[in-house]
Amino acid sequence: MAGSTYGEVFKVTTFGESHGISVGVIVDGVTPGVELDPTYIQKQMDRRKPGQSSVTTPRKEYDTINIVSGIFEGKTTGTPMCIILQNTDMRPEAYSDIQNAFRPGHADFTYLEKYGIRDHRGSGRASGRETAGRVAAGAVARKLLERRGVSIVAFTKMLGGIECETFDESVIEENPVRACDPVAAERMISKIHELAAVGDSCGGIVECRIRGVKPGLGEPVFDKLDAELAKAMLSIGAVKGIEFGAGFAAAGMNGSEHNDEMDANGYRTNNAGGIIGGISNGAEIVFRIAVKPTSSISRPQQTMNIFGQEQTIETHGRHDPSICPRIVPVVEAMACLVLEDMYKRQAALHD
Amino acid sequence: MAGSTYGEVFKVTTFGESHGISVGVIVDGVTPGVELDPTYIQKQMDRRKPGQSSVTTPRKEYDTINIVSGIFEGKTTGTPMCIILQNTDMRPEAYSDIQNAFRPGHADFTYLEKYGIRDHRGSGRASGRETAGRVAAGAVARKLLERRGVSIVAFTKMLGGIECETFDESVIEENPVRACDPVAAERMISKIHELAAVGDSCGGIVECRIRGVKPGLGEPVFDKLDAELAKAMLSIGAVKGIEFGAGFAAAGMNGSEHNDEMDANGYRTNNAGGIIGGISNGAEIVFRIAVKPTSSISRPQQTMNIFGQEQTIETHGRHDPSICPRIVPVVEAMACLVLEDMYKRQAALHD
Amino acid sequence: MAGSTYGEVFKVTTFGESHGISVGVIVDGVTPGVELDPTYIQKQMDRRKPGQSSVTTPRKEYDTINIVSGIFEGKTTGTPMCIILQNTDMRPEAYSDIQNAFRPGHADFTYLEKYGIRDHRGSGRASGRETAGRVAAGAVARKLLERRGVSIVAFTKMLGGIECETFDESVIEENPVRACDPVAAERMISKIHELAAVGDSCGGIVECRIRGVKPGLGEPVFDKLDAELAKAMLSIGAVKGIEFGAGFAAAGMNGSEHNDEMDANGYRTNNAGGIIGGISNGAEIVFRIAVKPTSSISRPQQTMNIFGQEQTIETHGRHDPSICPRIVPVVEAMACLVLEDMYKRQAALHD
Amino acid sequence: MAGSTYGEVFKVTTFGESHGISVGVIVDGVTPGVELDPTYIQKQMDRRKPGQSSVTTPRKEYDTINIVSGIFEGKTTGTPMCIILQNTDMRPEAYSDIQNAFRPGHADFTYLEKYGIRDHRGSGRASGRETAGRVAAGAVARKLLERRGVSIVAFTKMLGGIECETFDESVIEENPVRACDPVAAERMISKIHELAAVGDSCGGIVECRIRGVKPGLGEPVFDKLDAELAKAMLSIGAVKGIEFGAGFAAAGMNGSEHNDEMDANGYRTNNAGGIIGGISNGAEIVFRIAVKPTSSISRPQQTMNIFGQEQTIETHGRHDPSICPRIVPVVEAMACLVLEDMYKRQAALHD
Repeated sequence: MAGSTYGEVFKVTTFGESHGISVGVIVDGVTPGVELDPTYIQKQMDRRKPGQSSVTTPRKEYDTINIVSGIFEGKTTGTPMCIILQNTDMRPEAYSDIQNAFRPGHADFTYLEKYGIRDHRGSGRASGRETAGRVAAGAVARKLLERRGVSIVAFTKMLGGIECETFDESVIEENPVRACDPVAAERMISKIHELAAVGDSCGGIVECRIRGVKPGLGEPVFDKLDAELAKAMLSIGAVKGIEFGAGFAAAGMNGSEHNDEMDANGYRTNNAGGIIGGISNGAEIVFRIAVKPTSSISRPQQTMNIFGQEQTIETHGRHDPSICPRIVPVVEAMACLVLEDMYKRQAALHD
Repeated sequence: MAGSTYGEVFKVTTFGESHGISVGVIVDGVTPGVELDPTYIQKQMDRRKPGQSSVTTPRKEYDTINIVSGIFEGKTTGTPMCIILQNTDMRPEAYSDIQNAFRPGHADFTYLEKYGIRDHRGSGRASGRETAGRVAAGAVARKLLERRGVSIVAFTKMLGGIECETFDESVIEENPVRACDPVAAERMISKIHELAAVGDSCGGIVECRIRGVKPGLGEPVFDKLDAELAKAMLSIGAVKGIEFGAGFAAAGMNGSEHNDEMDANGYRTNNAGGIIGGISNGAEIVFRIAVKPTSSISRPQQTMNIFGQEQTIETHGRHDPSICPRIVPVVEAMACLVLEDMYKRQAALHD
Repeated sequence: MAGSTYGEVFKVTTFGESHGISVGVIVDGVTPGVELDPTYIQKQMDRRKPGQSSVTTPRKEYDTINIVSGIFEGKTTGTPMCIILQNTDMRPEAYSDIQNAFRPGHADFTYLEKYGIRDHRGSGRASGRETAGRVAAGAVARKLLERRGVSIVAFTKMLGGIECETFDESVIEENPVRACDPVAAERMISKIHELAAVGDSCGGIVECRIRGVKPGLGEPVFDKLDAELAKAMLSIGAVKGIEFGAGFAAAGMNGSEHNDEMDANGYRTNNAGGIIGGISNGAEIVFRIAVKPTSSISRPQQTMNIFGQEQTIETHGRHDPSICPRIVPVVEAMACLVLEDMYKRQAALHD
Repeated sequence: MAGSTYGEVFKVTTFGESHGISVGVIVDGVTPGVELDPTYIQKQMDRRKPGQSSVTTPRKEYDTINIVSGIFEGKTTGTPMCIILQNTDMRPEAYSDIQNAFRPGHADFTYLEKYGIRDHRGSGRASGRETAGRVAAGAVARKLLERRGVSIVAFTKMLGGIECETFDESVIEENPVRACDPVAAERMISKIHELAAVGDSCGGIVECRIRGVKPGLGEPVFDKLDAELAKAMLSIGAVKGIEFGAGFAAAGMNGSEHNDEMDANGYRTNNAGGIIGGISNGAEIVFRIAVKPTSSISRPQQTMNIFGQEQTIETHGRHDPSICPRIVPVVEAMACLVLEDMYKRQAALHD
C-alpha cells in the first residue's frame, strides 16, 4: 500500500535511504529447495554498482550482499530472504548546503509535499540507490526464471542522440554504456565525456528483449503482462515512457499493416511485441523505455527553497552523466520480478 | 490476483463477457454519504457506448446502468456498489464460423493458451465491452474527485496520421472523433470513412490532462503515480505505449534542457508532465498513449486455427474503424480510478 | 481493503443489502475448464435459504442463482463468476418504525458510527442475508476441493444448552437443527419452539471437521491455516469464539498430555486439531465455534435512538430463534474458501 | 501471499530464523513526522526477550534494536522502517541430534511437508523467536495509537490451572508471570518451578483489554475487527482458541440475557466484548486466548523421523515452561498492529 512492495505472489519490498546505514530488500514467496549461490546475486549487483567505469558516478560502493535469512545449506527455504547492502561511501555533509533548496528534476519538492518531512541526504529514499535492493531481488527471480527457460536482456539503444545501428548481443556487456552496437558505443562514450566536461547530462532509450516465454502468460483486464511491465518500468525513477513492439509507430499504421498474421510456425511479424490482450503470444517480448537525462548537473539552475524564495542552485555531487548504462540491470531486474510473479500466478490459477 | 481488480483502497472489479448475459462492476471503498445521481454515471456510459455516430460500431447497446447496491436514498453508503449493464444486442452466431480460427491482432490465441478454454463469442472477456464496467466505476471516482477539485480530460491528438494542430477543449465533445482541433476532426472523420470503405482501420494518439492535483500525490518506489497511470492505461486493450510530459523526446534532451526550473510561482516548464519521483508536483499531469489500429478488419488475412492448420480468415462483425473516439472516456475513467485510489492511500498514510 | 473481499488467489467479493434489489458475489481466480453444474451450487443455497423448516425464519426467499459470467458451455472459464440472488420477499416497511432506534445486539449503532449513514432496512449490509453470496462462492470452492479429495462437514454440537452425546454424520442433514445426534436434535427442536413461544432466542456451538487435507497446507507466520480459519469464522456475524482441537481445554493441560505423539501411522492423538505451526499435519482438521443467541427477540428492550434518547424497543420481524441450523452451511462455505485459497497459494509457492 | 506480512495499510513483514544471523521486521505505511525514540521500542523488546526471570528460558538475547531506515532526525519519515535484531546466543549444534526427528507439538513435520526443506535449528522460521520482529513493529503501532488515545493491556488470567481471582492492572508488570492477581501469581510461579523440575510444561489463558477505541472502528463482512483480531492472535504459534466478551459462554445464553441494552451513557453490559457486527461499539474491547503448553519438554516422547521410522525423542534445549508470561507482549503487539491498520483503513474510506 505504501508503495515499497511489488508483486502478488513473488513479493519484493525494498527499504533504506541513500545515505542511511544500509539499503536492502525482502523477497517473500521464493520457491523452496532451489540452489542459489550468493555469487549469482553478487554478479548482478556488480553490474549495477557505482564506480564501474569512467562513464558512471565515482561514488564507491562495493554492494557486497549479506543474505540474512531464507537460505539454508545453499538452498532457498521458501521463507523470506532478507538481503542487506551496507552503505559505505556516504557523504551526507555534501548535501548540507542544499538541504533547503529543491534541486530541479529531483523529487525534493514532491517528497516534502507528500510526507511533510524528508531525508535530504542524496535524495534519501528517492535516490537511485534504492534500486540496489531491486537488483538483488531480481537476481533471485532470474534464477527461478532460468529453470523455466526464460532469458532477459536489456541494452542501450540510443544515448545522447546517438542510435545503435546494429544489434550484437555479445558486445553489450563489453562496453561501458551497454550498447548493442560497438561503433555507436564509442561515440556514446565520447558524448558522455563531452557532457561531463561541461557539467551537463543526457538521456537515452533502453530496449529489453525477453525470450523463452511460452504463449499464455499474463493476466486479463487490469493486470495484463504489458500493463505490469509498464508499471514496473515507470517505477524506475528516470523513466518517462514505454512502448511495446511497434509502439508509438503503431498509432500511425493501418490495421492491415499492424496485425501480425500467423502461419503454422507462429507469428510472421511482431508488431505486438510478443503480447496480445495482455497475454504472451510466444514471440519475443520487446519493449523500449525513454530515459530522461540525469537531473543532477553542475550548472547553475533557478529554483525555489523551502521558504518559498527563489534561488540559484549548483550541485556538485557524484553523479552519472547518463543513467542508461546502469539502468540496464535495473530494467532486467524489474522484468524478472514481473515475469516470476506472473508464472506463479498462472500456477495458482490452474491448480 | 486473477487480474480483474484494480486499486488498493478504492477497489474496482469488473465481470462479464461480450456476448454473455451482462457485464458490470463492483466498486468497493467508496466514501460514504456522498450524493450520487445515477444520471451522472449514465452520462459517462453514453460517451462510451457503441452506435453513437457514423464513426463507431453499429452494435446497439443502451448501456443503461442498474445500480444494485451501495446507494441508499440517493447517497453512497460506503458498501460495495454493484452496477450491471445488460447485454442486449448480442449476436453470438456471427462468430460461429470463426470460433476455431485465431483472428490476427485479437487475443483469441493467447486466451486459449492461457486458459485452455475460451468463450469465442466476440472475444468474450477480452472484448472492449469489458470496459463498460470501468467507465461506470470511473464515474463514481470522478464524482469523488470533483469534491477534491480535480478534473480530467482526454482527447484524440492524432488519428490515422492526422495531427491536431490547435487545442480547443470546448470542441472535444462536439465532434465524433473527440479531437481537440475542429479542422483536424473533419479530416479524421473523412479518413475513417475512407478506411471503412476499404475494410481497413487505423490507430492514433490520445492525450490526457489532469488538473487540480495538489503537489504530493502518489507513492514512492513501485507505486509511483506515473507507474500506476502507465499500468492503468496499458490495461486498456488497444494501448501499446505511454509517455509523460516530454516523454520519448526527453530521451534526446540534455539535463540542462529537460530539468524544469522553479520560481516563486512553481515550475516554469513542464517537461516532467506534472510528476517527479512518482509524486505530483502541482503542474498539470500530461500523458499520451499510442492506440493501435482496430484489429478487426474486413480483409482476408492469413492465420492459424485451433487444429494448427493455416487458413485465411475474413471477419465481418460490427467494429469501430478507429478505437480512439471511444477510448477517450475509458482513458479518463482509468485516470479517475488511479487518482481516487491514490488520494485515499495518502489519507491512510497521514492518519 | 473495504472488507467485502476474502482470499488472496481464490478471491471472493460479496455485495448487496438485505432489502435491496439483490445480493450476490463475484468469484475470481477459479480454475478454468472445470465442469460446474448450476444445480451443484443451488443445492448449497437451498441448505442456507430461509423458510426451510419450522425452526427457521418464515421469510421466503427462493435464492435461485443466476450465473451471469465465468461459465461457458458448462465449464468454468477462469474469468470472474458473478452470481446474483434476487431479493423477493423484502418488507422494508416492517423496519420503518425502528429506523431511528438501535436494536440491542444488532450492528445498527456501530454501522451508523462507522459510516455516518446506514440502510436500516433489515440491517442492510450487516444482515445475515449477505452470507447467501458466500454460500454460492463456497459451492464453487467445494467443487474444486472435491477434485483434491477434500471434504468438509459442519454440524450443531450444542444448542440452547443441549449437547449432542453421539456423533452420526448421516443424521446431520436429516434433522432441521443439523445436529449430529438425533435424540439431542429432538430436544433442540422443542427448545426452539419453547423459546419462540416466549419471543426469546438461544445460542449454540457448531463444530466443523475437514478431511482429506494432506500434510503441508497453510502458510507460516501471519497467514497460518488456523489463523485464516479463525478470521473466516469470526467474519460470520453471530460467531463470538473459536477453538481448534483441544482448544480452551489445552490451556489447562501439561505439555506431556497435550503433545500429539507420532508413530509410523501418523499422529496418535489429535489435540492439535490437525494443524501445527499453522500448517496441516494430515490429521482431521477440527474446530468449534461459539454462536451467540439471535439478537432479534420479541421482547421489550431498553435502548438508545439516533437522537441520543433512551427508549424501549420491541421488534417483530421474521427471525431464526437460533441461527445454528442455518449457520452450518455458511461455516462450511467459509472453510471451503479458506482451503481452496490455501491450495492455490501452495501451488504458487512451489511453481 | 507467502504469509510473512500482516496489514493492508500499516504493513508489517517479518524475516529471519531462530538460529540464523538475525531476525527483524519491515514496517511500511508509518505516519510520517512522528517523534519516535528508539528506547520506546526497546522497552517493548525487553518485555519479550528471553532470560528475563526464573520462569523463562535461559537463552540470552539482548534483542537490542537496530533501526536501519525510516527514521530521520528522531522522526518517522513515512518510508519503510527496517528494524534488525541480531541473534547472539545461537546454539545450532544443540539441535543436530534431533535434526532428523519430528518433535511432538512442534512444526518440524508440517514445515518439512510444506516446503520439502527445513532449517531444523531451533524450529527455524517457526520458532517463537520470529515474534521479536512483531513486538518491534507493535511498538511503532503503539506509539501511533497513543496519539489516538488508545491503550492496550494483556495479562495472564490462568496458568497451569490457577485462575486469577482479582484484577489489579498495576501488578501485571510487577510479577514475572504477568498475572493480574498477585496471590495467584505466586502460585503460578511455584507451579512453573514444579513443572520445570519434572521436565514438563503447562498452558494458560491470556486476556487482552483495549480502551479508548471510539465506536465505528472495523470493517464489515470479511475484515471485521474481531475477525482480524482472531487471525492476529491465532497467528501466534501457541494459541489454540479465542473468544470475545461472553465468548463460549454466549453459546449457552438466551438472547434476552446476552443482548447488551443501551441507555444514554452507552452499553449497560459488555457481553459483546466491545464489538458488534465486526465494528467497535465504544465499550472496552475484551478477548481471551487459549495458550497451549510449551511443546518442548524434557521427557521421552514417541515420534517418527524423516525416514518414516518410529523413535523416542528427548529434548534438552532452553525453553519456557509456560509461554504465557512472554506471550503477553506479543498479544499486545498484534493487537496494536490490527488496530493501527484499522484506523488507517477508516481514514482512507472517509477521505
